[in-house]
Amino acid sequence: MNQSTTAFDIGLEKGEANYKGLSPLSFLKRSAHVYPNKVAVIHGERRYSYAEFYARSRRLASALALHGVGMGDTVAVMAPNVPEMLECHFAVPMLGAVLNAINTRLDAATVGFILGHGEAKVVLVDKQLSPVMAEALSSSENAPFVIDIDDVMAPSGDLIGDVEYEAFIAAGDPEFAWESPADEWTTIALNYTSGTTGDPKGVLYSHRGAYLNAIGNAMTMGVDARSRYLWTLPMFHCNGWTFTWGVTAVGGTHVCLRDVDPAKIFPLIAEHKVTHMCGAPVVLTALIHAPDDVRRQFDHGISIATGGAAPPSAVIAGMEELGFSVTHLYGMTECYGPSTVCVWQPEWENLPLEERSVLMARQGVNYMTLEDQAIIDPDTMQSVPSDGETMGELMLKGNTVMKGYLKNPEATEAALRGDWLHTGDLGVMHSNGYIEIKDRSKDIIISGGENISSLEVEEALYRHPEIMEAAVVAAPHEKWGETPCAFVALTPGADTLSDADVIAYCRENLAHFKCPTKVIFGALPKTSTGKIQKFILREKVGN
Amino acid sequence: MNQSTTAFDIGLEKGEANYKGLSPLSFLKRSAHVYPNKVAVIHGERRYSYAEFYARSRRLASALALHGVGMGDTVAVMAPNVPEMLECHFAVPMLGAVLNAINTRLDAATVGFILGHGEAKVVLVDKQLSPVMAEALSSSENAPFVIDIDDVMAPSGDLIGDVEYEAFIAAGDPEFAWESPADEWTTIALNYTSGTTGDPKGVLYSHRGAYLNAIGNAMTMGVDARSRYLWTLPMFHCNGWTFTWGVTAVGGTHVCLRDVDPAKIFPLIAEHKVTHMCGAPVVLTALIHAPDDVRRQFDHGISIATGGAAPPSAVIAGMEELGFSVTHLYGMTECYGPSTVCVWQPEWENLPLEERSVLMARQGVNYMTLEDQAIIDPDTMQSVPSDGETMGELMLKGNTVMKGYLKNPEATEAALRGDWLHTGDLGVMHSNGYIEIKDRSKDIIISGGENISSLEVEEALYRHPEIMEAAVVAAPHEKWGETPCAFVALTPGADTLSDADVIAYCRENLAHFKCPTKVIFGALPKTSTGKIQKFILREKVGN
Repeated sequence: MNQSTTAFDIGLEKGEANYKGLSPLSFLKRSAHVYPNKVAVIHGERRYSYAEFYARSRRLASALALHGVGMGDTVAVMAPNVPEMLECHFAVPMLGAVLNAINTRLDAATVGFILGHGEAKVVLVDKQLSPVMAEALSSSENAPFVIDIDDVMAPSGDLIGDVEYEAFIAAGDPEFAWESPADEWTTIALNYTSGTTGDPKGVLYSHRGAYLNAIGNAMTMGVDARSRYLWTLPMFHCNGWTFTWGVTAVGGTHVCLRDVDPAKIFPLIAEHKVTHMCGAPVVLTALIHAPDDVRRQFDHGISIATGGAAPPSAVIAGMEELGFSVTHLYGMTECYGPSTVCVWQPEWENLPLEERSVLMARQGVNYMTLEDQAIIDPDTMQSVPSDGETMGELMLKGNTVMKGYLKNPEATEAALRGDWLHTGDLGVMHSNGYIEIKDRSKDIIISGGENISSLEVEEALYRHPEIMEAAVVAAPHEKWGETPCAFVALTPGADTLSDADVIAYCRENLAHFKCPTKVIFGALPKTSTGKIQKFILREKVGN
Repeated sequence: MNQSTTAFDIGLEKGEANYKGLSPLSFLKRSAHVYPNKVAVIHGERRYSYAEFYARSRRLASALALHGVGMGDTVAVMAPNVPEMLECHFAVPMLGAVLNAINTRLDAATVGFILGHGEAKVVLVDKQLSPVMAEALSSSENAPFVIDIDDVMAPSGDLIGDVEYEAFIAAGDPEFAWESPADEWTTIALNYTSGTTGDPKGVLYSHRGAYLNAIGNAMTMGVDARSRYLWTLPMFHCNGWTFTWGVTAVGGTHVCLRDVDPAKIFPLIAEHKVTHMCGAPVVLTALIHAPDDVRRQFDHGISIATGGAAPPSAVIAGMEELGFSVTHLYGMTECYGPSTVCVWQPEWENLPLEERSVLMARQGVNYMTLEDQAIIDPDTMQSVPSDGETMGELMLKGNTVMKGYLKNPEATEAALRGDWLHTGDLGVMHSNGYIEIKDRSKDIIISGGENISSLEVEEALYRHPEIMEAAVVAAPHEKWGETPCAFVALTPGADTLSDADVIAYCRENLAHFKCPTKVIFGALPKTSTGKIQKFILREKVGN
């Protein structure tokens, strides 16, 4: 629509009174004002009120400013889900600086690459992670200022930095007069993808996008001032899918957690009456299959959001038995974490589990704060029909799509070409407007010219009561080109299954051409965020 | 903070993939996609699903476009809370045009002024209001195209227009390809203030501000997809405090209502299990004092937001007895309706009613979507101390402050001077960060050099069990300059009170210099939005 100047514009420009760049920094400021004495952050024996959370964040910002951190500088942090990590999410952007939260499971070489590529000026590191960081720093070209996080709950590790966190912020001003950036398009965070080929790419988020996705999360998951959010999702993962900011926005309580260990999770849920958490399906699986003396049921109502892969029906059922309601989200680093939600429809209430879980396995519809999503033919850039069958690529657009990749204009251009974010995920559009991912482009198995969705085969395998986890990849095949090979981890205490048993089971439940011809048993390799690493499995089968 | 170009900006400009102007139009599009078959709008026997609500809005937009309505044109509507009014809230902005919803209680001369000043190109009018509109049009300089809304639930009235609404939209395209404005600062609505002196001023809202305030409402009041919102608040009043857009954002159900009549409200709440509604305290009073055969109690939990005046303790208690929880909001036309909320604090739960209602009478804290508010000395533009005593003017800033007044740069400049919206309301900042309005500037009574808050005297009067409504204004006084005069409406069936009784009661409950010296009994004059018209009372006492 063309803009023209009308009486509705003349002398009515934006000003300080009626325009303010959106920034999640406003959330902490407000919650500290509204809920000064309320517990904002819990970590072991530590408790911080919202007034303290804000004061500590301002101290950190002030101390960083004294060390020369300012607009456009990078501050890297490598830590589990501890209070200092939350404080970084507010303190660093208060300076117009960029927060680079690093995946805690990365090797030293990759961390070194990230510190160099991101040009980190300051690094914060939890002492448990100091060995990797020390090695990374030794090989890094730049020599950042290093701050140790000396968490009493860290199991081990040396202090390797220039100063310890508490001493560092003690020098900062708890009333530090920060300003949010004048331009809401200013970068707030730098998150490196865990690319399986080539160097990691640095995804950039804006203050505007972070504000909106945080609100989208709160509204989608019903997080409010009464909520207690348990940090089972790493904060380094898309800034905790932006829940770092979203829980703060509504004045909820953050319950920190260093390790995704059911023996720690169940007691924390009980003690703090946790209402919300997030995690990959493998986190849910770990809870369901926890030892009997660890596993507990709850009746106070817990919402768990899962993403990264569709929750198999057995996982949905298992979680419901424990007292959790499961919401299926979809997203990726390039869209601030969740962009898409399988919105629950009231008429699903009375469906049998199997039917319900087929519907819940769909990724669903765009978040209220994402402008649009579509399944598009990448050659023609036209939407495919909403028939549940025609495959295309899932594409997204809106304010919660990344600014682009740092210092990588070719990759940015490729990812955002044609005015859409290309997710690389292949799927269909159902007649009810819900999208369903069928596979990553590279996960499709082409056998005798037929496309086989590895997800479909996996979903069948997950329904077998003795199979805990499954992953299916293409193995080379003389005659068919490719053939499905299944990797299977059995439930604890399961009877021994043979490969013939698994194949026979599949032939009862799938078209025969889709059935695995080979089955390999054992634990599955996973990323730090709980995604099964199919590229390792592919290597094992020579593909 | 200065902006500079860093690696985080180079080649990373906003584009179609990652930037979209905020607009509440996205809410209806998404809800029609996610909840196509869900009931969006209920009016008498009529039901519209979200798909139908969207299709009807697109038909209206398309038909208006065929009549030449486009960017920057004004479309006026004068109607009660009917489905057509909701449709206008989406259809008109789809064209980049500006919606001018007119107060239904205005006289023809004022309506004529508004049509002329706003340069309405099209007018929609409910047939009940056609007599006033016909008169307004006859005296208006411009000759807009007129569309009749022929609601079967309208009690009477002629059709005066060029075409009837259903016939008009039948010619429109239900798949009309609208675009939201490229610039989110584009004006979406024009709302005239009901100024008591001079001509009404035309307050302008942007798409951005409307989007944010609508989300702020949904989050503040906990409105979600399961909510059923009863339209006891006029939609012409700040676009229904932006709940027109907010309820649509979350896919809730709008329950329309032509008249604020307890005999209609109670049955609708019961039939549709209404969860949310809004209204001035007089609406709450009307419910509490409804005849016994009309009044009902509910146990399903209803949230009612009230604003325009602090809810007296008797009103809070009365509503709680009926099953409503009361939230006190504050706002004005210049800030999209609500900007401020008395956020409930958990520790209030166990307080006695009297203490609780003192806290709940405070206007509270800024909405999450408003940047800031403060009590400021307008001379120095410095905040007053947070002592609960020092008076200053409530000032607001942020994205939900108006763009300004239409064709009135002086008034815009005055309202937004010093980078804050000057509300004209006088109040204090409490130590807990909650503001409390003590009075409109002109409602302060100055007696013998002492300031008397008319609100404080009114609050005391409301606590009298036989007083239903009260308003206090300054009457001229020979000796003291001014003296408080109380206007009082008694509860139905109350014993007769004398003026001496009322004065004696006040002397027991207030400092003597604050007590009314004169009491006048009878119904109080009110605006269409339920505010007591103190200027009429002032005229009665010769002030």
